[in-house]
Amino acid sequence: MDIDNSLLKFTIRQGRKSEHSVEEIEQMMPSLPLNCPLSPYRQMASFDWRDLKLVIEGEQVIKFRNRIFRTLENDPLFQRSPVEELTREQKREITFKRLKRLMEYNLLPDDEFIQNPLLTQQLYNALGQYDWSLSAKQFLAREFVTISLRGAGSSRHLAILDQMLSFEAIGCFALTELSHGSNTKAMGTRADFDVNTQEFILNTPNFESTKVWSGNMGQTATHAVTFAQLYVNDRNHGLSAFIVPIRDPKTLLPYPGVIIGDMGPKIGLNGLDNGFASFKNYRISKSYLMNRTGDIDSSGDYVTTIKDKKHRTGITLGTLSMGRVGILSISVANMRTAITIGIRYSAARRQFGPRSNPTIEWPVIEYQMQQWRLFPYLSATYVLDIFCQSFLRDFLNFQVAVLFGTSSPSLAELGQEIHAVACAAKPISGWLCRDTIQECREACGGHGYLAASRLGELRDDHDANNTYEGDNNVLQMQTSNFLIGKYQKYISEQRNGNGNVNGNGNGNDVSNDILDDLIVADNNNNDFKSQMGSIEFLNDVDNNVKQLRYTNGEDVCNMDFILRTYRFLVSYLLLRSVDKLDCELKISMGDLFVARSNSQVYYCRSLSFAFIEHFIMLRYSKFLNEELADDVPMAIRQVLQRMGILYGLWSLDAHSSILYEGGYYDGHDANRSIRTTILQLCELIKPDAVSIVDAIAPPDFILNSVLGYADGDIYRHIYQAMTMNTKTFERAEWWRDFTNDKPAVASLEPIDNNNHQNENIDQQQQQQQAKL
Amino acid sequence: MDIDNSLLKFTIRQGRKSEHSVEEIEQMMPSLPLNCPLSPYRQMASFDWRDLKLVIEGEQVIKFRNRIFRTLENDPLFQRSPVEELTREQKREITFKRLKRLMEYNLLPDDEFIQNPLLTQQLYNALGQYDWSLSAKQFLAREFVTISLRGAGSSRHLAILDQMLSFEAIGCFALTELSHGSNTKAMGTRADFDVNTQEFILNTPNFESTKVWSGNMGQTATHAVTFAQLYVNDRNHGLSAFIVPIRDPKTLLPYPGVIIGDMGPKIGLNGLDNGFASFKNYRISKSYLMNRTGDIDSSGDYVTTIKDKKHRTGITLGTLSMGRVGILSISVANMRTAITIGIRYSAARRQFGPRSNPTIEWPVIEYQMQQWRLFPYLSATYVLDIFCQSFLRDFLNFQVAVLFGTSSPSLAELGQEIHAVACAAKPISGWLCRDTIQECREACGGHGYLAASRLGELRDDHDANNTYEGDNNVLQMQTSNFLIGKYQKYISEQRNGNGNVNGNGNGNDVSNDILDDLIVADNNNNDFKSQMGSIEFLNDVDNNVKQLRYTNGEDVCNMDFILRTYRFLVSYLLLRSVDKLDCELKISMGDLFVARSNSQVYYCRSLSFAFIEHFIMLRYSKFLNEELADDVPMAIRQVLQRMGILYGLWSLDAHSSILYEGGYYDGHDANRSIRTTILQLCELIKPDAVSIVDAIAPPDFILNSVLGYADGDIYRHIYQAMTMNTKTFERAEWWRDFTNDKPAVASLEPIDNNNHQNENIDQQQQQQQAKL
Repeated sequence: MDIDNSLLKFTIRQGRKSEHSVEEIEQMMPSLPLNCPLSPYRQMASFDWRDLKLVIEGEQVIKFRNRIFRTLENDPLFQRSPVEELTREQKREITFKRLKRLMEYNLLPDDEFIQNPLLTQQLYNALGQYDWSLSAKQFLAREFVTISLRGAGSSRHLAILDQMLSFEAIGCFALTELSHGSNTKAMGTRADFDVNTQEFILNTPNFESTKVWSGNMGQTATHAVTFAQLYVNDRNHGLSAFIVPIRDPKTLLPYPGVIIGDMGPKIGLNGLDNGFASFKNYRISKSYLMNRTGDIDSSGDYVTTIKDKKHRTGITLGTLSMGRVGILSISVANMRTAITIGIRYSAARRQFGPRSNPTIEWPVIEYQMQQWRLFPYLSATYVLDIFCQSFLRDFLNFQVAVLFGTSSPSLAELGQEIHAVACAAKPISGWLCRDTIQECREACGGHGYLAASRLGELRDDHDANNTYEGDNNVLQMQTSNFLIGKYQKYISEQRNGNGNVNGNGNGNDVSNDILDDLIVADNNNNDFKSQMGSIEFLNDVDNNVKQLRYTNGEDVCNMDFILRTYRFLVSYLLLRSVDKLDCELKISMGDLFVARSNSQVYYCRSLSFAFIEHFIMLRYSKFLNEELADDVPMAIRQVLQRMGILYGLWSLDAHSSILYEGGYYDGHDANRSIRTTILQLCELIKPDAVSIVDAIAPPDFILNSVLGYADGDIYRHIYQAMTMNTKTFERAEWWRDFTNDKPAVASLEPIDNNNHQNENIDQQQQQQQAKL
Repeated sequence: MDIDNSLLKFTIRQGRKSEHSVEEIEQMMPSLPLNCPLSPYRQMASFDWRDLKLVIEGEQVIKFRNRIFRTLENDPLFQRSPVEELTREQKREITFKRLKRLMEYNLLPDDEFIQNPLLTQQLYNALGQYDWSLSAKQFLAREFVTISLRGAGSSRHLAILDQMLSFEAIGCFALTELSHGSNTKAMGTRADFDVNTQEFILNTPNFESTKVWSGNMGQTATHAVTFAQLYVNDRNHGLSAFIVPIRDPKTLLPYPGVIIGDMGPKIGLNGLDNGFASFKNYRISKSYLMNRTGDIDSSGDYVTTIKDKKHRTGITLGTLSMGRVGILSISVANMRTAITIGIRYSAARRQFGPRSNPTIEWPVIEYQMQQWRLFPYLSATYVLDIFCQSFLRDFLNFQVAVLFGTSSPSLAELGQEIHAVACAAKPISGWLCRDTIQECREACGGHGYLAASRLGELRDDHDANNTYEGDNNVLQMQTSNFLIGKYQKYISEQRNGNGNVNGNGNGNDVSNDILDDLIVADNNNNDFKSQMGSIEFLNDVDNNVKQLRYTNGEDVCNMDFILRTYRFLVSYLLLRSVDKLDCELKISMGDLFVARSNSQVYYCRSLSFAFIEHFIMLRYSKFLNEELADDVPMAIRQVLQRMGILYGLWSLDAHSSILYEGGYYDGHDANRSIRTTILQLCELIKPDAVSIVDAIAPPDFILNSVLGYADGDIYRHIYQAMTMNTKTFERAEWWRDFTNDKPAVASLEPIDNNNHQNENIDQQQQQQQAKL
């Protein structure tokens, strides 16, 4: 299989309206409502939203997303309403039924996938914009487990794979335990090899080692990719993966020896059945060991197939980034949904107005404050969207190379860089999305507090993204560790002359320790060269800090200023982080773990933020300068430019105290100039804002928010939602509790301190019950 | 009625352990669990948590809160569990039943209330820590409506008041309309006086004027304090309040002419029945007009009883602050709950450890990052708590004076100052609480995503506080307008010599405009003197900006540094805001509305933040220096000092770019010094953190979070919660959907662009249905 490069770059081959008939365009991008509260802004816009949509999504993606959205909209099984109130059990059932229906549709056939594997991401995001529980359930059942099997299993597991693809089996992934998430070495679940029966015996030694949080395990999975310490004769060969049958596919009842349950209500994603499992002398055949990298022979000897361990680590790191890259793209999808609601509502909602004409009320989007609250998130949505598309292409190229079994140093190096970028991109996008949703919730005022606004559901569902696939704060450490490690290597190279490729000259145990931990490839480019280009500017790290400065009065409203400022910022934070770590190493007497912990807040954390923001801007700048087709209209270029600069300046603004501290800024001019420019950009974006969201808004059926529909007829939709709730106009069933059975006011004695003693024992019992 | 001043200061008269027997102390503050995961930290603490609790809450409040908590805990009607899943209707029913039961307990008898009216706030916060829907439902039914009736009604409304107190009637408050919240002048509901029948005819002219969001209206209220434009012969006499019978108390059915419904599912507070109402030629007796300040005589003439309008406005502004002061105190209560969960979990959860000893895992609270994420919010909880107590005392004194009918210029001035402080305190506390909850949610990792963590419910319930009683961003404008107005007056006084009390010398229309709008009292102190002391330092506004500076190397770890820095900051932001407003006034050709809108983001918003942070620190400093009893142990003083300094430095850190811009900081020293000190404080607070939350934690029954119970036995509680969900171990009812009825993979045709045309009409119909 070879990936057609021109197809991979589908976002670069933007569509053109001119290539299509009016009918085709209408089919692809149906007209938006006329004569509605949003029309004045649509008429005001400097460009046609369809041109922008074609540039951002491209024809192929637009059509593919249309297929998904329209298929769901046309199928009665997918009908719903913004005021729907389902119990957890009802959510589970409808999600399961929809999962089955999706298998019948096969929305992304193999031939299309092979032509453009990036459509997978579009599939799960489009499903997620409809409902994240459904998207996650299908992803976990179909992609995650099969990828694990393909990656870690071997030919003997193909039968299970086939069962999953035909819905005879459903998979889940069981790594996390009750008392351990990130620290895999401390996992307690064990698999002891019984040489007599050629079986593994699975056991959960204590309740803290119960497998938890496994999506699909609660009610539906028949097989669990289970991670356990592999023991032979009480010798631990490390954490290994097994494909463990947990439920009988004919009855969906657990097998004896497997205790499985449903984790119950969560903050969000309640259509997905997260489960827990423990094992009690549960025997499985030796063949269930996923044995691509290590196996047990019949006499019980452990055989590893891993050669070239260092390169392997780099490649594994890259591969493990899949989930994080996925969260980046989920975040963009959620930002699109939320910002559509926030901006359309703000353009339709009117409140107060100038004294000069008291009869006219302003749409709240006219207020500078509202613009400043929302537009930076709008710009972040665009900039992250472009970044996500470009990073996905890199990631996919990497995956294809891995699939072909390449294991070169340069691939390992790319794997590392992907890991470092993903570990910073996932937190920043997860948090930006969290803040976008919250700002939109608050910007919609009281009506934003209605469940029918959908902003509560978005917040609850998105919330998990900041935790799974690595807690954001923990992940950011990986990025700063990578940068510091690179720097240590770079310094040691400089010390030893650039020709010394093995870096043997390190006299410093500490930096060796860091290198062992992080820099896995003995490559020939020990400086800051990188295949994705994320760190090349650090070859000038010292000069960046010494020479780059803001000049009073300079024009900040351009990408060059932003990129240059970030080059200073990342370089400065890197040097400060290295100093801080060195200092903490001395204090902790060389304990790298302690030293790292104590150098996170200042400056490693900021380093990770600044690094990824710089890279995001770098990619966006490339998109503007190199990837836009020549005939993209000027007005579109201008809007995209404004999105980039607003996001860049707004992000830089959060670092300004460091820029002052580092001497890049001096005096009041820089700060004022940036903030003035941010407000000017808001003012310029205002007339275009509605059309900018029109270009990325999902269709009304998918959006499912009374505040965000394309016609902006907010009051009618709210009114309809209010009046169509379950039992809106019905008297409560318990009305006689008010009319017939009046309380005897002040008739009962509260429990006071003095009569508490007597109740002590009762209370404790009740308290126990209350705690469960 | 006279308020005993010593009682009002109950937080100053802190309790002493020495005044009580061991048994009494145990009764008041029962021992915490021994030999549990939190014990090591409890043993490490530098102080006894009970001493701290007595200082923060005082004996009276501890006992009063115990009464409420223990009464609820002992009553089967209030039992619940962290994994409870109720439908909206079930939540409504149980909340109503509990409301009735609370009437039977009468937890705050009149004599206690009269002795210490501040207990009201304690009552609603304690109930809220149990369940905010219940607290809000009782507050709206009992306090809000009766206060309105007492404030705006007259003797002819006493009968309705009596009915409410005996549960023959339930009230609600109906101001907000579908299309108007803040802009009361634009309200559409009208009441036309019919002189023939001596009745008002209520009408809702269009659906946008439907009254919405009224708590208790959805299912339970019999009377609504309804705001409508009062018309006599088509002449509008302005928005007036009516106490409107809406449901028959004998049947709970609405009266003909009243259309009432339930607003349906909300993001949170679903135990409370928010409702909507519209009127159609609904006639009510003239006597239902709440006629304290204006009335209609029998011939239809409107008579106002308001004299001294300017003073009245200031007093009204103060009185209207009640809701905002309440939200400040709700926020503190929620911060207490959330931070207890976050810190206890962090002290119990272990993950990874130093390389020097791989067998030991660190509690995550040992990580600098975790401390830095949580401890500033812990310190904010303490500092805001003290501020809230002190501001409540001011507010209560003000209310008492108003109750006695005082209407002096100085009372009007105090009313204004209370309004300005409340309009900044409500946003900052609401947002700090929002961020505390979110940080705790994320700091608890995956397990924080369980509904049984209670952090989701806290977030959802708290969310409303950032919107009602005035959107946070809109409210902050009131504060900056007040400060700018004061400054304009101060400048004009200086121009005219300080003796000119009438300020007639204003040659500037613009500042006159501002003055008219804001500075309502013609007092004798036109400078920055103030009764609460929030703005006195602004008498030196120019000198503050010119002379105050940070000196390299100075000790930042003290309150004096923090207060001085804030004096600079507020002064600088005030001058910048005035400049900006002047500039915008020129651009908008004198339209104050437009000019204000365009000067909000920079710098008015920051001004409002800095102003309230300074005042909070000022009060905290007073608490430390003047209000702590002599025999408060040194260790307690030290902890409280650290809380204050950490909050102060952490808050200042967010303003550092402005401090650089304004020239207060210069060079790298200031920024680094503050950040280093923040981390040092975190390290110092760490061994005490568990005991610091023990002093403010609600009892386990109230906390209701498996991650936050006092014994820190997190895994046992999570495990118990997981295994006691509804149907944890049961097979899903729809299991045959998997076993019997397999999907025919890829058997259905998705809707593609080419076959979309045919479906167009169907789709549109379905879309309409989906939107409701």
